[in-house]
Amino acid sequence: MTNFPWNRRHIISLEDFAPSEYESVLKTALSFQDVLSRRNKKVPTLQGQVVANLFFEPSTRTRSSFELAAKRLSADTLNFSPGSSSLSKGETILDTAKTYLAMGTDLMVIRHKGSGVPATIAQEMDRLGSGVGVLNAGDGQHEHPSQALLDLLTICNALNPKQPTIDDLRGKKIAIVGDILHSRVARSNLWSLTACGAQVHLAAPPTLLPKAFIEAFSQPIRTGSRSVQRQVFVHWQLEPALKDADFVMALRLQKERMSAHLLPSLREYHQRFGITRDRIQKCASTVKIMHPGPTNRGVEITSELMDDPHLSLIGKQVASGVAVRMALLYLMGGSKNGDLSR
Amino acid sequence: MTNFPWNRRHIISLEDFAPSEYESVLKTALSFQDVLSRRNKKVPTLQGQVVANLFFEPSTRTRSSFELAAKRLSADTLNFSPGSSSLSKGETILDTAKTYLAMGTDLMVIRHKGSGVPATIAQEMDRLGSGVGVLNAGDGQHEHPSQALLDLLTICNALNPKQPTIDDLRGKKIAIVGDILHSRVARSNLWSLTACGAQVHLAAPPTLLPKAFIEAFSQPIRTGSRSVQRQVFVHWQLEPALKDADFVMALRLQKERMSAHLLPSLREYHQRFGITRDRIQKCASTVKIMHPGPTNRGVEITSELMDDPHLSLIGKQVASGVAVRMALLYLMGGSKNGDLSR
Amino acid sequence: MTNFPWNRRHIISLEDFAPSEYESVLKTALSFQDVLSRRNKKVPTLQGQVVANLFFEPSTRTRSSFELAAKRLSADTLNFSPGSSSLSKGETILDTAKTYLAMGTDLMVIRHKGSGVPATIAQEMDRLGSGVGVLNAGDGQHEHPSQALLDLLTICNALNPKQPTIDDLRGKKIAIVGDILHSRVARSNLWSLTACGAQVHLAAPPTLLPKAFIEAFSQPIRTGSRSVQRQVFVHWQLEPALKDADFVMALRLQKERMSAHLLPSLREYHQRFGITRDRIQKCASTVKIMHPGPTNRGVEITSELMDDPHLSLIGKQVASGVAVRMALLYLMGGSKNGDLSR
Repeated sequence: MTNFPWNRRHIISLEDFAPSEYESVLKTALSFQDVLSRRNKKVPTLQGQVVANLFFEPSTRTRSSFELAAKRLSADTLNFSPGSSSLSKGETILDTAKTYLAMGTDLMVIRHKGSGVPATIAQEMDRLGSGVGVLNAGDGQHEHPSQALLDLLTICNALNPKQPTIDDLRGKKIAIVGDILHSRVARSNLWSLTACGAQVHLAAPPTLLPKAFIEAFSQPIRTGSRSVQRQVFVHWQLEPALKDADFVMALRLQKERMSAHLLPSLREYHQRFGITRDRIQKCASTVKIMHPGPTNRGVEITSELMDDPHLSLIGKQVASGVAVRMALLYLMGGSKNGDLSR
Repeated sequence: MTNFPWNRRHIISLEDFAPSEYESVLKTALSFQDVLSRRNKKVPTLQGQVVANLFFEPSTRTRSSFELAAKRLSADTLNFSPGSSSLSKGETILDTAKTYLAMGTDLMVIRHKGSGVPATIAQEMDRLGSGVGVLNAGDGQHEHPSQALLDLLTICNALNPKQPTIDDLRGKKIAIVGDILHSRVARSNLWSLTACGAQVHLAAPPTLLPKAFIEAFSQPIRTGSRSVQRQVFVHWQLEPALKDADFVMALRLQKERMSAHLLPSLREYHQRFGITRDRIQKCASTVKIMHPGPTNRGVEITSELMDDPHLSLIGKQVASGVAVRMALLYLMGGSKNGDLSR
Repeated sequence: MTNFPWNRRHIISLEDFAPSEYESVLKTALSFQDVLSRRNKKVPTLQGQVVANLFFEPSTRTRSSFELAAKRLSADTLNFSPGSSSLSKGETILDTAKTYLAMGTDLMVIRHKGSGVPATIAQEMDRLGSGVGVLNAGDGQHEHPSQALLDLLTICNALNPKQPTIDDLRGKKIAIVGDILHSRVARSNLWSLTACGAQVHLAAPPTLLPKAFIEAFSQPIRTGSRSVQRQVFVHWQLEPALKDADFVMALRLQKERMSAHLLPSLREYHQRFGITRDRIQKCASTVKIMHPGPTNRGVEITSELMDDPHLSLIGKQVASGVAVRMALLYLMGGSKNGDLSR
């Protein structure tokens, strides 16, 4: 098996990811999808290494996905849960991370409600010359790279099941609908999808999508000698975003937004921005529906669409998550080990 | 080593278990008891497979027992804990189960306070053609099959240590004492014990054992061409249940029953239905005492009886639990793997 | 590889540890430090055995350290967390321990807020003839032996990196500063350090260090035919303890002590007993700073000293923890397995 080029110790943000890096993640994840279709889904790649899941913000879905990815690479896992932790005893986050480093952690997967925490820990790990890789599993409203990368794998698999590549995305229209402003999933997807040449159309009420939002995404993407403009469009109505869309990605609506008066009610949100069978008539005939989960059934998407196996990619996203996270842990920590399919 | 016949993907209820199925579980569990007596207690049967423990209702004892059973079969385990979960974010239980399915779970062990939840999830897994097996680890006041099966193994081992079979149970008298009405343990045991030919005598205050209760158990058991009546008897006093009993199974008393005015006090309960050395004089001379745990010492059983190694099977029940759960996971998921003792 | 002599089933207290036992722990831990410097840090010593971490008192650091130690010895681990447990259902601690015994636990690691709980469980395990070893991972204000043993390894490594032995400690001056009265870490360290021939100087405000405290440590240490006096000194000021000290061990300050009026404020504590660069000028020129963690930065030690790699051994203490806990689990349970470096 081929190894794909990789030069990154940490995965914190997709902002500066090059197309070739997306391709390496995609190809490595595809190899692991093959492994996952076997009865014995384990490979010895990270045997004897320690992956610490430091989830300062509680999570079931993402933590389980990373834990399973690590176990399938034969790593030992340590789970940090903030409830019963030293944090309540006044320890700083950096000291917690250094404690896990000192115990012999090789890779740290970090989720925190504060934007920038994984980057700060990565910096400290480098300053100490530790060689430990840090993977951002969601930091505040900043980024959630592994979610965007599993979305990428899911989309490429849908576009070209036989031989998916990131080039399949070129010129495709992808609508991202919902609470863009507070979404780390949207931010990471904006970097990855535009870098692969897709057009991203954002749709949300103005309170959840200020005009200034897309300024951040106005710098061009450099690919070798070429420099290409990112294609991001803002809509305060749903219809123009859905028109001819190849993929519709609904974001999870946090109920806290109501109490902050950013939204009148779940019902009104669904009436204006909910994805329904009626509304997706305007999409491309091959449109697929996505959601990072967990969903509020009947709010972001009708229950009936969610369960339509021809339309919904939601289950495939979760499945892609394990393969992509195996790929990321492998690329960050295991590439010295040689053949990843053994 | 022989494989024993098995045709069930899910284990939800013992209501329709045939004697031959009890025999398969018993024989497989006995093989694993041999494995557990070795220094290295692991077998590679479920290597590379994933067992997800979805305990929507908290539990230490049962979850640890299933986790250990899975690990000894070399499976990878995922633990879902409701506290830090997507449920608090509004996700439905079915969506949680589908998420674990999409991650690649092979077997799901499910506990939920609502009767019927494991059955509903099993149905959905089948509808999706997933091939995933669901094991009910206790649902509301409905059933707790693995508890009744470990009780069966414990009883057969006590009756015939050399070569236990379910036929050893025929004609034996087993008293089940306590909060029958709310007990999933009692319900599952009623199915298994009567199907194996034992006489079950229930004893409880009328508030915890309505006359109508045993109607459900009035349909006959079909064994091949024969059809046999289940033998269940109801007593509102302890003495007739204990008389000549071969086994006395005390059920855990939930303290919540007091506040619901179903019982006056723990002390009065112990005075009327507590198992004491004095009272068991009326039992068979070889009587054994059982309890599914956790016990309220001095309420259901006197502390002194609990700790008498000649009378109490409580520790053996816990030990049987690991062997029986290994057997169930093996029969549900691992039987394709060949020899289970390797 | 040589096996070092060991005759102890349980590790509850260091009070009666002989110098030869400290030497066995040290030498075994040093072998595991070699293992931990390899890429694959696992050895098959405890393959197929079960280590149950029964942490009745919550902990991240110590639990993770024991969990990792057990996994690196290839044991299966079970974690008991009091939150979701049978304890809330009225089960006694002894019954919980007996449940884990019946499941097939080989080694129990126990933390409890009550002094004496691990000893009581160990006694019960022996009474039952179980063969299970119990390791005290911190009981109330009594002892925390594995912490003192990892401190010993850290100190010996610092004194003699090439070939550390406990004899390196003879005549060294070690200051222990802080809440001595309530500290299980201080108590365990007092036994180990004095037994190895070090002079221990305690410094704390009188409310946290009553004169009577050291009476317990007045009995002599028996080494073969010799009998030596333990050297412990009490100071109510910091300066005499620091003077010419080779090691300064600051203890964690529990904020609860303020509300109990044992201390006026964190700020005043730091002014009188905080370790600062200024104050350590009076120590030996090669002085090293230690802390069992988690630290209150700027209270027990200035942040700047904590992060000084030439002065602080705090990270090394955590790293030593994994090696020492591997050694303890190995000595208690795995020594029958032969060569520990395979």
